[in-house]
Amino acid sequence: MIAAGVPAERAESLAEVLLYADMLGIHSHGVMRIARYIECIRSGGIHPLAPLQILEESPCMMRVSANGGLGIPASCEVIRRLIKKAGSQALAAASVSHSDHYGAAGYYALKLAENGLIGFSMSNTCPLIAVTGAAAAGIGNNPFAYAAPAGRYRAVLFDVCMSVVASGKIQLAADNGKPIPEGWILDCTGKPTTDPKEIYNGAIMLPFAQHKGYGFAVMVELLSGVLSGAGILDGVHSWNMIPGEDANTGHFFLAINPKFFGGLETFVSRTEEMIDKLHSAPTLEGVKQIYYPGELEFQSEARALKDGIDLPQSAGEALAKAAAAVGIQI
Amino acid sequence: MIAAGVPAERAESLAEVLLYADMLGIHSHGVMRIARYIECIRSGGIHPLAPLQILEESPCMMRVSANGGLGIPASCEVIRRLIKKAGSQALAAASVSHSDHYGAAGYYALKLAENGLIGFSMSNTCPLIAVTGAAAAGIGNNPFAYAAPAGRYRAVLFDVCMSVVASGKIQLAADNGKPIPEGWILDCTGKPTTDPKEIYNGAIMLPFAQHKGYGFAVMVELLSGVLSGAGILDGVHSWNMIPGEDANTGHFFLAINPKFFGGLETFVSRTEEMIDKLHSAPTLEGVKQIYYPGELEFQSEARALKDGIDLPQSAGEALAKAAAAVGIQI
Repeated sequence: MIAAGVPAERAESLAEVLLYADMLGIHSHGVMRIARYIECIRSGGIHPLAPLQILEESPCMMRVSANGGLGIPASCEVIRRLIKKAGSQALAAASVSHSDHYGAAGYYALKLAENGLIGFSMSNTCPLIAVTGAAAAGIGNNPFAYAAPAGRYRAVLFDVCMSVVASGKIQLAADNGKPIPEGWILDCTGKPTTDPKEIYNGAIMLPFAQHKGYGFAVMVELLSGVLSGAGILDGVHSWNMIPGEDANTGHFFLAINPKFFGGLETFVSRTEEMIDKLHSAPTLEGVKQIYYPGELEFQSEARALKDGIDLPQSAGEALAKAAAAVGIQI
Repeated sequence: MIAAGVPAERAESLAEVLLYADMLGIHSHGVMRIARYIECIRSGGIHPLAPLQILEESPCMMRVSANGGLGIPASCEVIRRLIKKAGSQALAAASVSHSDHYGAAGYYALKLAENGLIGFSMSNTCPLIAVTGAAAAGIGNNPFAYAAPAGRYRAVLFDVCMSVVASGKIQLAADNGKPIPEGWILDCTGKPTTDPKEIYNGAIMLPFAQHKGYGFAVMVELLSGVLSGAGILDGVHSWNMIPGEDANTGHFFLAINPKFFGGLETFVSRTEEMIDKLHSAPTLEGVKQIYYPGELEFQSEARALKDGIDLPQSAGEALAKAAAAVGIQI
């Protein structure tokens, strides 16, 4: 990223957020994304030096423009400032406009949780999902995440998109040449398909739980797109490669400070109590244990810290492509 | 409700919230609930005169106990105060503990939206849903709603619970003697069933979209239960009839004021733009039009305003039962 013209501090943010995803086993949002970021930078669609611009600010909020810069370093800077605000306020929120792909939504929520806050993170995307009754993609596969401090359980962490499965998983299936189950996507003409390659050919994702996934996608659009001043629905351009234009992706972050609601210690011990209860449920036949949200991801993280990250082949190929693009031998 | 010992102002809140649900076509959360509220009051499980107690307060938050009183009037009072707070703050939130059933979650979110705010409303409930992998109910069918002002479109309104369908719908099916599709519930031994009467026999609801519904249910539990100081998971007692104990249901409300994020007018016109775009999507064969979240409910509300409310028979029977319990002839 530094060889592509990204300042060192921003490259560090990129490394941290992308490695977070790989460590938690979410390779679709890991280092393999570097290749696309570099493509966008080299074509002039993302400006790696764009300064963060504060449009409005109060002790509990900030409205920010990323000015067509990289979504990840902009979001990391916003989270640093939000943590400060939420230290002295029961609630603090930040919206970001004129941004781009911000990586795994859960990273930012977890960062807030690691600082004793209940954190929320969400972003709109270009249209990828057919809303209920529609035959074309009309709304983004808007990621939504929350996290909360949980004492001896590291954190509660939940990170989802609005489709039945993440597009990254379909891309991985395509890269690995494996078919996908029916009901995940429609092809570009609105017909069911099990060919994951259709994702590169205008396929339409379907929302989870029909109108429920649609409704949650609209919630993210209202906060990340409408409220922030970013693009709305097809006003967002994914992986923007057009010089002089920006993707105009929007993000929204919210922090709730339990210090103001009975105290952090009480909140953490009560969260532990909640997890203990979830763990103690009788299991279905063949199920070994109940997981709390985030538990499987943290197990993957612990393995990665011990043994290193086991990257899929497609990630290695993407990294090699990125390196070649900026003239680095790996 | 007045005949059952509820002060007139609180009875008015109950009438407004329950009629809201009936007008929007959500009869499961309408006036039919009065019978259960009266049963709880008469058995001593709900105290209709319990004073609202402010435990913590700042310009942007309040933590409240309903002191074992009725959930609806307590929540209406909290929403009135939250609207005032959010007038001068970008964000305001309130948590409620020691409460009971608060009716349709969407009412409170819509009330905030009618006052120019983006509103969120949620509540935990007694365990009704099997979390992913579990063979018993471990978490509530926690309702979650949001609403936003939308100019010529009245509002955006989304109100869901975490099960594949609302328990009220299963109860209506049971009352009407109709079978339900497989995949909605398990019977009390963990086996699939299409008999809606199992809902009165310890049936276990299943979360929407598997782990996604589970994760959203935990989000509501963290804010409504853990943060508020209310009961957590099986610490909540539905339709409490035990004198001296309370249901200890918890609620959480959040208001975001667009005035601080670029202005209300801009937000409203951009929300209209979003809805226009959603409406303009090409439809699947056989689909007449695309609806935005809340549109169908507002159509029902408009019909009710014009022609009156068409109550299901079970609601009439529940009202007659309630009237008889307090010695009123209807």
